[in-house]
Amino acid sequence: MKLLRYGPKGQEKPGLLDAAGTIRDLSSLVPDINGDTLSPGVLAKLASVDPASLPAVTGNPRLGAAVIGMKNLICIGLNYADHAAETGSALPKEPIVFIKSLGALNGPFDDIIIPKNSVKTDWECELAIVIGTTARYVTEEQALDHVAGYAVGNDVSEREWQQERGPTWDKGKGFETFGPLGPYVVTKDEVPDPQNLKMWTDVDGVRQQDGSTKTMIFGVKTLVSYVSQCITLFPGDVIFTGTPPGVGLGKKPTPWFLKAGQQVKVGIEGLGEQVSNTVAYQG
Amino acid sequence: MKLLRYGPKGQEKPGLLDAAGTIRDLSSLVPDINGDTLSPGVLAKLASVDPASLPAVTGNPRLGAAVIGMKNLICIGLNYADHAAETGSALPKEPIVFIKSLGALNGPFDDIIIPKNSVKTDWECELAIVIGTTARYVTEEQALDHVAGYAVGNDVSEREWQQERGPTWDKGKGFETFGPLGPYVVTKDEVPDPQNLKMWTDVDGVRQQDGSTKTMIFGVKTLVSYVSQCITLFPGDVIFTGTPPGVGLGKKPTPWFLKAGQQVKVGIEGLGEQVSNTVAYQG
Repeated sequence: MKLLRYGPKGQEKPGLLDAAGTIRDLSSLVPDINGDTLSPGVLAKLASVDPASLPAVTGNPRLGAAVIGMKNLICIGLNYADHAAETGSALPKEPIVFIKSLGALNGPFDDIIIPKNSVKTDWECELAIVIGTTARYVTEEQALDHVAGYAVGNDVSEREWQQERGPTWDKGKGFETFGPLGPYVVTKDEVPDPQNLKMWTDVDGVRQQDGSTKTMIFGVKTLVSYVSQCITLFPGDVIFTGTPPGVGLGKKPTPWFLKAGQQVKVGIEGLGEQVSNTVAYQG
Repeated sequence: MKLLRYGPKGQEKPGLLDAAGTIRDLSSLVPDINGDTLSPGVLAKLASVDPASLPAVTGNPRLGAAVIGMKNLICIGLNYADHAAETGSALPKEPIVFIKSLGALNGPFDDIIIPKNSVKTDWECELAIVIGTTARYVTEEQALDHVAGYAVGNDVSEREWQQERGPTWDKGKGFETFGPLGPYVVTKDEVPDPQNLKMWTDVDGVRQQDGSTKTMIFGVKTLVSYVSQCITLFPGDVIFTGTPPGVGLGKKPTPWFLKAGQQVKVGIEGLGEQVSNTVAYQG
């Protein structure tokens, strides 16, 4: 299933994208796409419903972040060997974990706001893991049992705040609109191998990131298990798993970054594509 | 006002502590102590109610974390000069910001669970700022207008995961039960000078931290303003503002840490006191 949230910001309703690409209203079955809905029991119930029996949503509604109400929006840093190299960083010996402000969540076609005075706003196409059941000290063998599905995430990053303002990274990752998530959550039954998905970023129509989840240093199983040793993962929680090479910070000979008026497309094979326009902060 | 949440875990109701120390049930007026309730308008409405007109809560109910439903649980690192010194760290030139998992929130008298295999679980008594209105790029002069009140926080920290497992700190801060908050939120009208509050930690009855918010490097106004430049603060959000000297990591000649079976009391003048027993993880 492809689960999504549609409607105006703050008033999204739960929906399901059917095989023909029509949004079907799930409001009569679940209140939202959140931790409760992503539990195995509720997902099984939804999977048993004929989409044609659900009301079709007409028009072309806005989509919200594909999941809401989580406790954790975890991110993994430098999780692709080539990306670590392009940023001049050593390969991590264990996953680098940081937390993105929940206030950063953004719809997959919403604008990305370039922060006030920012000159280093960068893109990061990432596979997002969506948790379905509580994961606390789980092994790698158990890890996928706790996953509900996957989505496209863009870990938008302000590099000056991330790298030049002290030892932690969180300052550069949590600006509003810096966490587009979606267009939808694809349940794991439709993603037979999360470690073999093409992923890409285009800026103004020119390909910048052209990678595959194949080259992750720490794969999905390892990440869920590892994070669960220190931060308990709850249903609805999301892990952004790191980005392949091709971010603005890694451009040679000169890094370059996003300005207002650009278009960023990030996509992952089978999980859909986001299209975000960048705009200046209007204060 | 002193606002609190009472009742079994996950089923807390909103309450108000009256001048006689009796909990009054606020359920008929607000659904919970969250961002909506902490807005200036709702706080003014609650302040206009005679506590004696509200049902008295009998017995001695458990208290939950004093605020719930926030988007951000922000922490400031090394914000007391003497604490930076005791940990062998340089004074920060600007606030160090990291994010604590919302899954760490804990009631002020709940047990603190020592994580599996942890040998470096440490205490940090902290003044918690509770946000009442959205703060986005606010100045220091505007900052206090966005504050609803204050509470006691314990930024419980696992030092091995914080310091020895990669460049970010978030791994060591987000274990379940690592964020006791409360016993209550004290509205700012009752805290005339947040930079002149005594604060303390006792472990098994022996004083370990004996400080004052006077010696913060970056004060409340500066922190709210600074954080709002990178992470928008929403109503109900909480900032833990750093800890004075006297943590286990700073003990000379040998650091020592919490074990199961100990009692940790952390308190701040006018904001109450938490009492947490430490227990081993039972998996």
